[in-house]
Amino acid sequence: MKFIIQRDQLIESVQNVMKAISSRTTIPILTGMKIEASEEGIKLTGSDSDISIESFIPQEEDGIVYVEHIEPGSIVLQAKYFPDIVRKLPQKTVEIESDNNRNVTIRSGNAEFHLNGQDPEEYPQLPQLHTEDSFELPIDLLKNLIRQTVFAVSTSETRPILTGVHVKMEDGELEFIATDSHRLASRKIPLEQPEGKALPSVVIPGKSLTELNKILDDSEDTIEVSVTENQVLFRTKHLYFLSRLLDGNYPETSRLIPEQSKTIVKIDAKELLQSVDRASLLAKENRNNVVRLITKENNHLEITGNSPEVGNVVEEVLASDVDGEDLKISFSAKYMMDALKAVDYDQVKVEFTGAMRPFLIRPVDDDQILQLILPVRTY
Amino acid sequence: MKFIIQRDQLIESVQNVMKAISSRTTIPILTGMKIEASEEGIKLTGSDSDISIESFIPQEEDGIVYVEHIEPGSIVLQAKYFPDIVRKLPQKTVEIESDNNRNVTIRSGNAEFHLNGQDPEEYPQLPQLHTEDSFELPIDLLKNLIRQTVFAVSTSETRPILTGVHVKMEDGELEFIATDSHRLASRKIPLEQPEGKALPSVVIPGKSLTELNKILDDSEDTIEVSVTENQVLFRTKHLYFLSRLLDGNYPETSRLIPEQSKTIVKIDAKELLQSVDRASLLAKENRNNVVRLITKENNHLEITGNSPEVGNVVEEVLASDVDGEDLKISFSAKYMMDALKAVDYDQVKVEFTGAMRPFLIRPVDDDQILQLILPVRTY
Repeated sequence: MKFIIQRDQLIESVQNVMKAISSRTTIPILTGMKIEASEEGIKLTGSDSDISIESFIPQEEDGIVYVEHIEPGSIVLQAKYFPDIVRKLPQKTVEIESDNNRNVTIRSGNAEFHLNGQDPEEYPQLPQLHTEDSFELPIDLLKNLIRQTVFAVSTSETRPILTGVHVKMEDGELEFIATDSHRLASRKIPLEQPEGKALPSVVIPGKSLTELNKILDDSEDTIEVSVTENQVLFRTKHLYFLSRLLDGNYPETSRLIPEQSKTIVKIDAKELLQSVDRASLLAKENRNNVVRLITKENNHLEITGNSPEVGNVVEEVLASDVDGEDLKISFSAKYMMDALKAVDYDQVKVEFTGAMRPFLIRPVDDDQILQLILPVRTY
Repeated sequence: MKFIIQRDQLIESVQNVMKAISSRTTIPILTGMKIEASEEGIKLTGSDSDISIESFIPQEEDGIVYVEHIEPGSIVLQAKYFPDIVRKLPQKTVEIESDNNRNVTIRSGNAEFHLNGQDPEEYPQLPQLHTEDSFELPIDLLKNLIRQTVFAVSTSETRPILTGVHVKMEDGELEFIATDSHRLASRKIPLEQPEGKALPSVVIPGKSLTELNKILDDSEDTIEVSVTENQVLFRTKHLYFLSRLLDGNYPETSRLIPEQSKTIVKIDAKELLQSVDRASLLAKENRNNVVRLITKENNHLEITGNSPEVGNVVEEVLASDVDGEDLKISFSAKYMMDALKAVDYDQVKVEFTGAMRPFLIRPVDDDQILQLILPVRTY
């Protein structure tokens, strides 16, 4: 195997593929990165068996040559050192070569690295997904779907299914739902189902979506999502991101969402966020970082935080509108801040159904985003 | 006590003073920050008994009013929450007030914090330095003196005196010296001695100088340095930085510096730095991160790193000049990179006296900076 490649393209691909490589894998060859050269270009592969990522650098695209002097072949390199080596090379181009004894040479300017390669035949074959269950959506929209839901997955393994994001396609809508049973985040978008077929609803590990979100650049290009029984594949022009799915039934979450509300607050999201943030500064001694919200006269809210040892905070916030019953309620400041950041609209509507029932946060004029938080009992 | 103060000035002062406050102190009141209001302005104090920092915000300066409505008094506040509170306040001004029961109220816009203050009488009095042993130098020059030496102090407590920087004033020169016994960094500047008096030579803890360097902004303003038997004070217009000195005799380091050399290499510092950096990538398995340098024909150097398990690196660097005996020498890549960064000149001169003797790195045309490294024995 031999080729000369543009360093900057190689750096980017290596960084993407590294997201799937863990040094703590039980399969030693997976600590390495597979490099395959063909006449079409260079393919890098990394995997921790949960997530597998392939990144492709074409020999030439849009008249720009990225790879030259290709002699096809493949090798597996220790991933621990490879990213630093590539990043610190002195020249704009890099020559990578492996001989029959799997000795790999990386040359750039007057720098020459000799690395011991591993047998590419030992590297597990990535499953080829055969499915017609696929759909496309713009990359920036997918990134939003992930960003607005994935923070709410459970970090505890007591109910493994809750560590994933529930992805459903029904009635011409695609929906992402995440809950850790103390809060819930959901985002819907209208999406034409491919040829009218229903797609299976799946649960994608939160970690996979977080890594995918890091790799994808904001762009209006489309990404193809394909689903099988136990895997999901995200594919762009040069990226192939495969994740296992979580086994088991995702709980029915729609019944959690209150259908009527007793107090509705319309308010500037940023002002509410900053007030809750400040109130929480002195609520950190409590394990749950709990703040209290009380409706006052003339559309005012009082938000308070309290640590008897240290002191307390009182925040007064003017809402645009407060409608319905008076309310005293306590909740996790962190959950509220996460939800407000995810909603990402200037004006939000917070719908309460009494101090003991979950409440909803959503944009004033948009039903596609919904955040739900369970209050905290305080006496 | 009561006053209204510009938030941004307060944030900066609080951040500076926090550098002296540790949550792990054995004296509980020192986990707090002392605030003193007088007609002249506001003084903040923090201390961990090794370092004490006072920052002063004048009531008014250059026609700009920083503090208004001052009612003199003082209080000690828990430092753990104070910086975050101040940083997140909603308005440009902050009102701080304490009553006779040491209840402190911090108000800004619609945010109101109530904190339990502590008795300022319990806060230890900072020693007032009475000394005529002082001198002045520009702040940016002091920052350079620190930056070019402090990294070489010892991090081990086996010889505590080596955790400090030796500061000497002799023959019209001020010199900073640091060594961990494997390497040495020194920087001299010409400095008129105050009224011809010799100043005592002292050893300042490396940690104190590192914190001081973080607080000082690059500036051509001068800073006053005063020395007593066991303390050193750095004073600018609004900052008072006091550090204890290290007890004991600093070793005589001048005899470490070879007086003649057998091989002299003149070379571009950045090129050498980058080559050593790359060679070290595959030398990390060795505890000491050792690379090897060999002189070649026609002013070429070969720099190599080797990890038998992983592979090796060969770097070829063209020096501007190589004069004297051929050489093979091994050294810590980290020490070499630290030294080259500290020298901070384009062209450096590296003077070797054989493979077993310490070697020197300094700028080609400047004798005020000197870096010394002990080679590593490899067979």
